[in-house]
Amino acid sequence: MNDPTSFHLPAIDATADASLQARLQHKIDHKTKPQGALGRLEGLALQLGLVQRSESPVLRQPQMVVFAADHGIAAEGVSAYPQAVTVQMVGNMLAGGAAINVFARQHGFDLLVVDAGVAAELPAHPRLQARKMAPGTRNSCREAAMTRAEAQAALSAGMQVVAALPGNVVAFGEMGIANTSAAALLLSRLAGVGIEAAAGRGTGLDNAQLLHKQSVLARTLLRHPATEPLDVVGELAALGGFEIAMMAGAMLQAASERRLVLVDGFIAGAAALVARALAPNVRDYLVFCHLSAENGHRLLLSHLQARPLLELDLRLGEGTGALLAWPLVQSAAGFLNEMASFESAGVSEK
Amino acid sequence: MNDPTSFHLPAIDATADASLQARLQHKIDHKTKPQGALGRLEGLALQLGLVQRSESPVLRQPQMVVFAADHGIAAEGVSAYPQAVTVQMVGNMLAGGAAINVFARQHGFDLLVVDAGVAAELPAHPRLQARKMAPGTRNSCREAAMTRAEAQAALSAGMQVVAALPGNVVAFGEMGIANTSAAALLLSRLAGVGIEAAAGRGTGLDNAQLLHKQSVLARTLLRHPATEPLDVVGELAALGGFEIAMMAGAMLQAASERRLVLVDGFIAGAAALVARALAPNVRDYLVFCHLSAENGHRLLLSHLQARPLLELDLRLGEGTGALLAWPLVQSAAGFLNEMASFESAGVSEK
Repeated sequence: MNDPTSFHLPAIDATADASLQARLQHKIDHKTKPQGALGRLEGLALQLGLVQRSESPVLRQPQMVVFAADHGIAAEGVSAYPQAVTVQMVGNMLAGGAAINVFARQHGFDLLVVDAGVAAELPAHPRLQARKMAPGTRNSCREAAMTRAEAQAALSAGMQVVAALPGNVVAFGEMGIANTSAAALLLSRLAGVGIEAAAGRGTGLDNAQLLHKQSVLARTLLRHPATEPLDVVGELAALGGFEIAMMAGAMLQAASERRLVLVDGFIAGAAALVARALAPNVRDYLVFCHLSAENGHRLLLSHLQARPLLELDLRLGEGTGALLAWPLVQSAAGFLNEMASFESAGVSEK
Repeated sequence: MNDPTSFHLPAIDATADASLQARLQHKIDHKTKPQGALGRLEGLALQLGLVQRSESPVLRQPQMVVFAADHGIAAEGVSAYPQAVTVQMVGNMLAGGAAINVFARQHGFDLLVVDAGVAAELPAHPRLQARKMAPGTRNSCREAAMTRAEAQAALSAGMQVVAALPGNVVAFGEMGIANTSAAALLLSRLAGVGIEAAAGRGTGLDNAQLLHKQSVLARTLLRHPATEPLDVVGELAALGGFEIAMMAGAMLQAASERRLVLVDGFIAGAAALVARALAPNVRDYLVFCHLSAENGHRLLLSHLQARPLLELDLRLGEGTGALLAWPLVQSAAGFLNEMASFESAGVSEK
């Protein structure tokens, strides 16, 4: 049943290379600083070098892609905002007024918005790519959110989006009212996290609304029993969303091309969970950018054994956390390429 | 005894302004995002607005100042590196090869190195400002590190350095072999933290070396009994360093001119502790940029009730953590000034 070849899963290399790793570590350790003194940036520099198979990795033309889609489960009242906000916020992004626009301009990212399945017609726009699977998923509390064919087509569409992009760094974000519900369902099913812990307040539920969301999601999981072994594409189809499926495909394609992938928050994390379940090597290419305020995100990162770069209590999505962490990736490349060594600077080692 | 007027402590306003704060909060809350969804950036935007007395704060010509000095207590073997590294690293900074140069170039900071008391003659350089108090402090384990007059002169020199700088943002860093010892002594004395907890591994002491450092610092504190009430300038003179004293003066001056101050790690934190003890309002102007790997830093931040922006296990100093956090300050100003409101974008509020 779990037949990833049906959507042409791309080949993804592991980045491990003992010889290159030793040369990178030697280079890092001989910079004019105590060993390890640049902390997390040193591991990041190592990852960058391994991803690019280079002792002098270069970051080129970073791209921000926001996948937008609606969710049938929004009808169950699991979000603080009405579904119409998805299309309104897409319009805001195309007009340049959303937080992600501000941060993309600040950091020189090209911004592309992909209509993966927004429940409204969107007029053509140079920054918008039309990949609408349907006007929103079905309500997963009642039936599968997508068919298997739709899930596979969404994964493929995500791959195609990335294949056409320039540069060697991609950041992924999302917009979709109720998509923390889809992410929580996938976290619960793929990582074995209880749904009460996986479900959080999203854009701002109060206590009663959170209890309602948890109960809706618990019923949703019961409606779609897990198979043994786990059918990843089947779970994605039953519980996920178009933007999550496309983002998972986009991550797989990016890794297959040895691009660095900046992973935003909880929803992007759920896409990473799906991608890793389909192709474990994708993990090597992912930079987990921040820990959000959404409850399940910590559990998701812990499951992926990922330590995020930032912890700023963000809960906005759109890819904002990925872009906020980006300068740290640049700093990692910068110190690796530009700092003097003890020898070149004439500084005593201890 | 504690007579701050003798070094002309500048007047520092508290930033509190209930009316402006309400207007800023209203502006933040009506941006196209759920309330609070930009997490820590929202508090930062509020601080920026209050510091600049503006609903649309603008960041101009950010300056990086590195204060360098040597420490007599280095003779007790409290550092993993020889004292000669201070002047070597100053040379590396002037040549552009240190980590702080890489990050200053990345973020468009002008970099100024101040010789506050390096134990060697430094040739003139356009990026170097000569403010040498003496070729290093005296060994505080045996006698006061500075005279009271020297401590006051160093505070004044720091004020003068800042008064001549352009822009409205200053970041402070330091270079000085053994200066985690001076910082630990000040933390212990000014914040009542036990010296075993305040003293850490610095640039990389092993367990035996750390025990030795702790024992040296414990003896140093015994040699300089605390007065009641605490004589801040006297403690700074007995236990501190020229770079720490100048940095404290620089922070006071910056706050008096309503500049935003980016505070780096443990040493800069100790300078902030001194500055706040002299003028509590300085606290409003400080952005605590990161939590370093140095043991005492967490205790210092906790004493100042400060939550740092980054936690990247840095332990390099130089101001590197301050510059790594800088893009977040820009993002805070950016979202406040550039994001659309619900009304302007036609997005539904919940």
